Amino acid sequence: MEEWTVEVEHCKSPKEKPKTEELEFGRIFTDHMLVIDYTEPVGWHDARIIPYQPLTIDPSAMVFHYGQSVFEGLKAYYTPDGDIQLFRPEKNLERMNRSNDRLCIPQIDESHVLKAIKQLVHMEKDWVPTAEGTSLYIRPFIISTEPFIGVAPAHHYKLIVILSPVGAYYKEGINPVKIAVENTFVRAVKGGTGEAKTGGNYASSLKAQELCAKQGFTQVLWLDGVEKKYIEEVGSMNVFFKIDGEIVTPSLNGSILEGVTRNSVIQLLKHWQLPVTEKRISMEELYQAHMDGTLEEAFGTGTAAVISPIGQLSWEGKDLHINNGKTGKVAKALYETLTGIQYGKEKDPFNWIEKVTETETIPVK
Amino acid sequence: MEEWTVEVEHCKSPKEKPKTEELEFGRIFTDHMLVIDYTEPVGWHDARIIPYQPLTIDPSAMVFHYGQSVFEGLKAYYTPDGDIQLFRPEKNLERMNRSNDRLCIPQIDESHVLKAIKQLVHMEKDWVPTAEGTSLYIRPFIISTEPFIGVAPAHHYKLIVILSPVGAYYKEGINPVKIAVENTFVRAVKGGTGEAKTGGNYASSLKAQELCAKQGFTQVLWLDGVEKKYIEEVGSMNVFFKIDGEIVTPSLNGSILEGVTRNSVIQLLKHWQLPVTEKRISMEELYQAHMDGTLEEAFGTGTAAVISPIGQLSWEGKDLHINNGKTGKVAKALYETLTGIQYGKEKDPFNWIEKVTETETIPVK
Repeated sequence: MEEWTVEVEHCKSPKEKPKTEELEFGRIFTDHMLVIDYTEPVGWHDARIIPYQPLTIDPSAMVFHYGQSVFEGLKAYYTPDGDIQLFRPEKNLERMNRSNDRLCIPQIDESHVLKAIKQLVHMEKDWVPTAEGTSLYIRPFIISTEPFIGVAPAHHYKLIVILSPVGAYYKEGINPVKIAVENTFVRAVKGGTGEAKTGGNYASSLKAQELCAKQGFTQVLWLDGVEKKYIEEVGSMNVFFKIDGEIVTPSLNGSILEGVTRNSVIQLLKHWQLPVTEKRISMEELYQAHMDGTLEEAFGTGTAAVISPIGQLSWEGKDLHINNGKTGKVAKALYETLTGIQYGKEKDPFNWIEKVTETETIPVK
Repeated sequence: MEEWTVEVEHCKSPKEKPKTEELEFGRIFTDHMLVIDYTEPVGWHDARIIPYQPLTIDPSAMVFHYGQSVFEGLKAYYTPDGDIQLFRPEKNLERMNRSNDRLCIPQIDESHVLKAIKQLVHMEKDWVPTAEGTSLYIRPFIISTEPFIGVAPAHHYKLIVILSPVGAYYKEGINPVKIAVENTFVRAVKGGTGEAKTGGNYASSLKAQELCAKQGFTQVLWLDGVEKKYIEEVGSMNVFFKIDGEIVTPSLNGSILEGVTRNSVIQLLKHWQLPVTEKRISMEELYQAHMDGTLEEAFGTGTAAVISPIGQLSWEGKDLHINNGKTGKVAKALYETLTGIQYGKEKDPFNWIEKVTETETIPVK
């Protein structure tokens, strides 16, 4: 493509924006969306911002049958200065391309897509909620749209970005949640799609989630699919533990999603000169630490909830109450610093923030 | 629901039907489709046969993000008497409900849906191709349509059935194919979704399939995801081997799809009083049988290809040429008997056939 431009069609009847107290997660969407098409041999083309509207897709479109899709999730934050900013968006687009590779979806031009996302967010700047803990959730996703019933990579795709003003992901907020260790169902295994952000991983997780919710738990803790011994993730978040002063998280082993928040937490802990280690952690080892009184904290990390402390972990009939069910010091410091940087209230020593400004947006036809 | 009826809206401009030589797999669709909606608390409702048309779906619909979907595949056959018949359709709808359970999708009324499918096929009877080896492929699928960005089972779904007149699935037809044993990628693992017919399993398989195709293979043979030792499936089919006179197939272990053709093959072999065993089979064991000269046949089974003989199997740099690359006697007999029953040319001692007749269809509003 010689010149990268995004055509814009403004919506004629803007929706009413939700009140702060009406915000939940992922139910309300803004007035516009970004769409980019892929066809062979043209490649990605026809980037356009159009009024938010239903998709018109053939019932034989491959995404409905063979699940060839990827997605990402990031947020735009409103700062005390009235700026709007993104947190490490390039990491999400890098990961989208890694997911694309695993799912046989053509690579995107990360810088083009990031520019188009910024243009969309800038157009929708009045949709970024301003109350504490709220943000504008950005959901880029790619679906295979070729009308063909056959197991093969598609030749047509759509990349779509929709925006949703959101409140807290968990109604518990930063308060500790109860987690059940999952012994029957498996999220992913090495050689599968666990490292990719693709629908199948989430579809596969619903059953375990439904059963644990019935027993009063917020999420499950996934163990490895081979030996059912080693800790992988918690729900749709990465997981960290503080054991005897050391902070540990499962190493990226081929079945764990590499979270942007996980990566940021590791960098922050190193910056604070706290000991942090990526390694294989067995549930037995964690239980032993709990019995020895050295399991000091546990928390999940993810874009939606940022930091989610774990107050109770149930495993094979045993209940591990962690830090007396209270939010630990490390989890609290991480939450405050990360959200501080995200909302422009703290210094950003890592250059994680990208402002969304009018001048940075791209020519509009 | 008091009375189960299907509303019908006829299409105004029927498409031209393809010539036999134009038939491939899954590219052409008929004039009508069946749609049934699910909403809470109503349940499944508003069954209707309408002109084949694009779906209008919100971009936040859960199926695009979290892959909550299931599907089935079966065929309608044209007999020498001019009848149209289905092959064990109740098995597909039973399996759809097992898939629904795993994916947290509400159960369907199997007999209602089967009646509606028969009504649709009857309406489209002129679309059932009559040439040898051709059929009308029936694709029922369920997608989650609730507009919500959150990992949870949806509250709205659509069950859709589309029809496609098809030729042979593999261009090789009943001729033997070359298969590569997959050592890097994994299809499924116990505790995952391997037993369910859901998009994620197929999305996950694309990468291995793409790489093996570049090396001249038709499909991969999947090994278990835990030890990478034991044989699971071949591509999107179940797999059988004849070793020293005994026919063996991997037992259903929690990660293998229970194929309707697999089940029919086992029944047929027993009926013929041939020894058939479901058991765990290692690749090492298979290789040893090959070296001993006792690996007599290998073939895949599935609705699309029926029986697909394997002429060559490549594993860790070794090429196993099976039965001199020719179709074996058992594979040939199974293919001929199964297709004979399906096309109404052979007796059906198992009551596998269901005729599609006008009187069997349901009241039309």
